[in-house]
Amino acid sequence: MKKEVAIGIDIGGTNTVIGIVDRAGNILAETTTPTLTNTDIREYLDSLTVKINEIVFQQNNTIEVKGIGIGAPSSNYFTGEIIGATNLGWGERVPLVELMREYYDYPVIVLTNDANSAAVGEKMYGGAQGMKDFIMLTLGTGVGSGIVVNDQLVLGHDGFAGELGHVITQPDGRECGCGRKGCLETYASATGICRTVSEIMATTNTKSELRNVAAESFTSRMIYDAAVKGDELALKAFALTGKMLGKAISDFVAFSSPEAVFLFGGLALAGDFIFTPTKEAMEENMCFLYSEKVKLLPSELDGAKIAILGASAVVWQEMKN
Amino acid sequence: MKKEVAIGIDIGGTNTVIGIVDRAGNILAETTTPTLTNTDIREYLDSLTVKINEIVFQQNNTIEVKGIGIGAPSSNYFTGEIIGATNLGWGERVPLVELMREYYDYPVIVLTNDANSAAVGEKMYGGAQGMKDFIMLTLGTGVGSGIVVNDQLVLGHDGFAGELGHVITQPDGRECGCGRKGCLETYASATGICRTVSEIMATTNTKSELRNVAAESFTSRMIYDAAVKGDELALKAFALTGKMLGKAISDFVAFSSPEAVFLFGGLALAGDFIFTPTKEAMEENMCFLYSEKVKLLPSELDGAKIAILGASAVVWQEMKN
Repeated sequence: MKKEVAIGIDIGGTNTVIGIVDRAGNILAETTTPTLTNTDIREYLDSLTVKINEIVFQQNNTIEVKGIGIGAPSSNYFTGEIIGATNLGWGERVPLVELMREYYDYPVIVLTNDANSAAVGEKMYGGAQGMKDFIMLTLGTGVGSGIVVNDQLVLGHDGFAGELGHVITQPDGRECGCGRKGCLETYASATGICRTVSEIMATTNTKSELRNVAAESFTSRMIYDAAVKGDELALKAFALTGKMLGKAISDFVAFSSPEAVFLFGGLALAGDFIFTPTKEAMEENMCFLYSEKVKLLPSELDGAKIAILGASAVVWQEMKN
Repeated sequence: MKKEVAIGIDIGGTNTVIGIVDRAGNILAETTTPTLTNTDIREYLDSLTVKINEIVFQQNNTIEVKGIGIGAPSSNYFTGEIIGATNLGWGERVPLVELMREYYDYPVIVLTNDANSAAVGEKMYGGAQGMKDFIMLTLGTGVGSGIVVNDQLVLGHDGFAGELGHVITQPDGRECGCGRKGCLETYASATGICRTVSEIMATTNTKSELRNVAAESFTSRMIYDAAVKGDELALKAFALTGKMLGKAISDFVAFSSPEAVFLFGGLALAGDFIFTPTKEAMEENMCFLYSEKVKLLPSELDGAKIAILGASAVVWQEMKN
């Protein structure tokens, strides 16, 4: 019997990554192709599909492709289009799914939000297997979220649901790239913790090796490394970050009463430094209805492979619906 | 052909209300029976079912009952039990659905959260017909919420989802009955607006007829009446209430990107006094992704009949799933 697989594709600004993934989340093959921007989209799709066919062919007829999941910027799950992604230079509206159907018979699904794909990936291959209600928070440069309710991804009426990074955690707080102030992502992202380090430097006399580094050069990794060495300021930064994140999570819980909240991404790799204060603040601020009921867990997915895993997982999820 | 109906039951602390409701939300018959507390639950169910049978019988065989929806305090949708409702005096765990099945063959569903029933009622009979993603906020003594995502009620892993009244809107804000501080319901409920009146009295010199009333005697109706007469303090109170509510809604939108948010309950009846500042604050605080996309609407359901309508609506919703 042939092995059922899904093809996961991640269209980035420079490169497109393609992977063949089985139901267990094993990547059987992987390849990349340049994202041909500022050209006719068909030219790009011609080269993309050649690459797809190549790795499918290499499987020597041992696989059965069940569908293609694509993570693409500014795309819309409902219409299958990429809309207003000017940087790609393929025009205002690109009917990606429709065009892909000229090449393939199996289902093609697009999803724009990385955190949505990560959530579906976690559900299919990771720690959320068997869970019907959970929230995935991706703590990277920004904070993204993918929410699963009643066993389904929450997309909203327009496909834009799940932007918990832009919930205002601190009224009149830090300036956010979205034009507002106090969004969760200005505190609980990799860049947020760097801002927190600057803030602690300004408001306390806490000694730290980080004081010798220009703010612009801070990285969350650097703060983690300092924390591991016991740097007091770095430890404070993690404590404050966890506090903001935990408070925010306690509010998210009042929305969907999830079984678990997963943390994914750079900041989540800091382990106890981030999980301990987050869990503490979460329980401290939680409405009693939810006390000690909601798990806070690290993602079990390989961060480097999340784009492909997530995109492919959407195929399995779609088949189930 | 017989008319398909659902029976909606609302178990209150003193009385139980029973209604026969058709698919269009018309109440064909309605009756009440005392809620026999501190007794054997079977004794209560015997008298309840006699009453149900009575109004069903009166329909002269013109109806076909498709199911029974029950709104009961501390009940659990998933297990069909009433758990820990000590004031009812029926014991710690009452297997309500199981017991009702000894009397009837058709489906019996329990739902604890009034706002959840209201949401389903709005979807089946009111302004949310045809909407797959919306949020219902009930602004009564407290603030309740019922959330519909992907055409389904959000219940969460334990049935306790949708408590947006207990999202912290103002860090370190007003004391809430839940033991925490700054919950939305301390601002945007009927009692919340009374507290706001007291606050404005304390912090400003704004003249008002309300200054002659003891704080304990304030009602949201009284504040509404004063606002209608142009009382400046009452108008300020609505403006501030709408501001807090609108800010909170803009965060809820980032979760599920709903097509609309419905307001229901005493405070929602204040019309423009509450809708105008709420809509304004909502758009002012909204992440650009959702700007001008989300409708803010008054519930179209009869407030006095909501308990029966909501409970019956759950039957139709269940049949669809």
